[in-house]
Amino acid sequence: MEASQEKVQSDHKAFGWAATDSSGLLSPFHFARRSNGDDDITMRILYCGICHTDLGMLRNHHGISLYPLVPGHEIVGVVTQVGSKVHKFKVGDKAGVGTMIGSCGACQNCQDDLESYCPSMTTTYTMFSPDGSINYGGFSDILVVNEHFAVRFPDNLSPEGGAPLLCAGITVYSPMKHFGLTQPGMHLGVVGLGGLGHVAVKFAKAFGMKVTVISTSLAKKNAALAELGADSFLVSHDSEQMQAALGTMDGIIDTVSAPHALKPLIELLKRDGKLIMLGAPDMEKPTDLPLYSLFVGRKVISASMTGGMRETQEMMEFAGKHNISADVEVISMADVNTAMERLTKGDVKYRFVIDIANSLATN
Amino acid sequence: MEASQEKVQSDHKAFGWAATDSSGLLSPFHFARRSNGDDDITMRILYCGICHTDLGMLRNHHGISLYPLVPGHEIVGVVTQVGSKVHKFKVGDKAGVGTMIGSCGACQNCQDDLESYCPSMTTTYTMFSPDGSINYGGFSDILVVNEHFAVRFPDNLSPEGGAPLLCAGITVYSPMKHFGLTQPGMHLGVVGLGGLGHVAVKFAKAFGMKVTVISTSLAKKNAALAELGADSFLVSHDSEQMQAALGTMDGIIDTVSAPHALKPLIELLKRDGKLIMLGAPDMEKPTDLPLYSLFVGRKVISASMTGGMRETQEMMEFAGKHNISADVEVISMADVNTAMERLTKGDVKYRFVIDIANSLATN
Repeated sequence: MEASQEKVQSDHKAFGWAATDSSGLLSPFHFARRSNGDDDITMRILYCGICHTDLGMLRNHHGISLYPLVPGHEIVGVVTQVGSKVHKFKVGDKAGVGTMIGSCGACQNCQDDLESYCPSMTTTYTMFSPDGSINYGGFSDILVVNEHFAVRFPDNLSPEGGAPLLCAGITVYSPMKHFGLTQPGMHLGVVGLGGLGHVAVKFAKAFGMKVTVISTSLAKKNAALAELGADSFLVSHDSEQMQAALGTMDGIIDTVSAPHALKPLIELLKRDGKLIMLGAPDMEKPTDLPLYSLFVGRKVISASMTGGMRETQEMMEFAGKHNISADVEVISMADVNTAMERLTKGDVKYRFVIDIANSLATN
Repeated sequence: MEASQEKVQSDHKAFGWAATDSSGLLSPFHFARRSNGDDDITMRILYCGICHTDLGMLRNHHGISLYPLVPGHEIVGVVTQVGSKVHKFKVGDKAGVGTMIGSCGACQNCQDDLESYCPSMTTTYTMFSPDGSINYGGFSDILVVNEHFAVRFPDNLSPEGGAPLLCAGITVYSPMKHFGLTQPGMHLGVVGLGGLGHVAVKFAKAFGMKVTVISTSLAKKNAALAELGADSFLVSHDSEQMQAALGTMDGIIDTVSAPHALKPLIELLKRDGKLIMLGAPDMEKPTDLPLYSLFVGRKVISASMTGGMRETQEMMEFAGKHNISADVEVISMADVNTAMERLTKGDVKYRFVIDIANSLATN
């Protein structure tokens, strides 16, 4: 088995599912990976999560998609080959790869271990490689990646539950750490209980915080409280509930991309409270900012992209230590188009993860 | 002289100029101050600055003004009487009083020395006192105030130049300290070169920062660079200048109350840069927030009111040490209505200060 894997790699042959146009429909696709360089590892992919961003990229919502497009940036696999300069991994280790696979290494952001803010950051798929080819993501059998952009994956975590941590996990963990929203006893609001939100609740509880989930849907109350361990639940359009919670929160992690009013959230914050927006915002349309609401309590609004590699490794270790993984629905590759349709309706609790190793080869 | 002053105080008689309606026109007005309590000091007022807020309150722009209205919250005077429990002052000391004269003392904000954020904070004028009377500000001969809300005024500062520090000074100093925008070598943008802005430039230079003034008016360039020592000057509507400064600033102190676009300012910030709004915003109208601009560099927007009493004392001592005072135009009380008219047109460099001691008695 290991021998045949290595044969595939030395031939650079790879196999995955790709969309060929903005319909976003995925179908089997043969392509090539680069050969394993001195700083590279090759991974046999076990699982790959499905993020909302994948849906947008498949359908070219941002106008930057390159086809054929193999999505996938929540990747867990087993290392099958290591380059001569690789020091973090050996063959047989589990490794994770998230949203990026390259950066300039020289700019201030890279120097600060925040490769995600590097202007030359390379996303895991649908960008041109230096040789002019398009790069391909984790809906595929193997991946070749510079070891700097792979993290060690904790042995005690399930690879399927851990896969979404590579994007959803670090995207909530990074701002919680950066903005000091990790202190035991602090009160954190989490807006939206999807892939990001449900992991934010788990991290916050592991930090010893009081957590309130804020959602448009009362239907999520039981899951928030009983399944995820949140301390309380607010329905955002229930003005009585919101009124009772005014000025009680140290911070809010807002995971909702759809446009929504900020004022009611800002008003939930204590003095010096911080509202951190994580949902990918519309590049064109501004949001209404009620400046006065910031003014009366020196409150802060910020927004955050995903974290850097050092912090991603730290997050994985924290998740391993506290046994935190995402709640996932594992699917086979054959069901990926159906899953994408369900994702458009938010019909998943909380993340689809494709069982690559056991279902891709059969297609 | 001192004896006659004390006679006035023991009679509680006071004299100032007041507006009687929202025309805002000021005219001579006799009233009474409370007797000096155990924790109080009585001050003979020397100088009182004129803030834009005074104009708005005189004309009832916020709908909360109480008439007769004696404005003035940038007050420097000489202590003429101290209560039995006063420990910070003795008769003959110079003292300063700013925007507030009371707070609950018990809430978290008060416990944190941020009385300015106390929900029960009492502004220096146009609020009801516990006995049902209206309180009166610094356009008057004497003031009785709890010593907690007065600061020691440095001997080396001129009282006229120092008066505006009690509002304009602490309003810029407090957020610079709170948001960490005081490190030598940091690059600070200052938007608007009025009462607040010109003091912000002076503080920033004293902290050893690089300072860029951002203004709509090229006419202020010489004053910014040659008179105030700013390092550079940007005309905000000059897109070439703005473009060249993209991503260069650690923070921006925005002192402009009039609505203006935030996006061009956010784009001047480095990653993790902070845009701090100080101009009193419209309570009703939201501002356009370009969330995407925050997202790409984890940038922060906040807003800040004036600082607390501990920080106000610290600011006065910093100003004394670095010999920082406001650039003022001293006027007599007889000219106050003209000054108010000029203020509506921004025709002052940078602050009017009324010579109370030498001009009020003659009216």
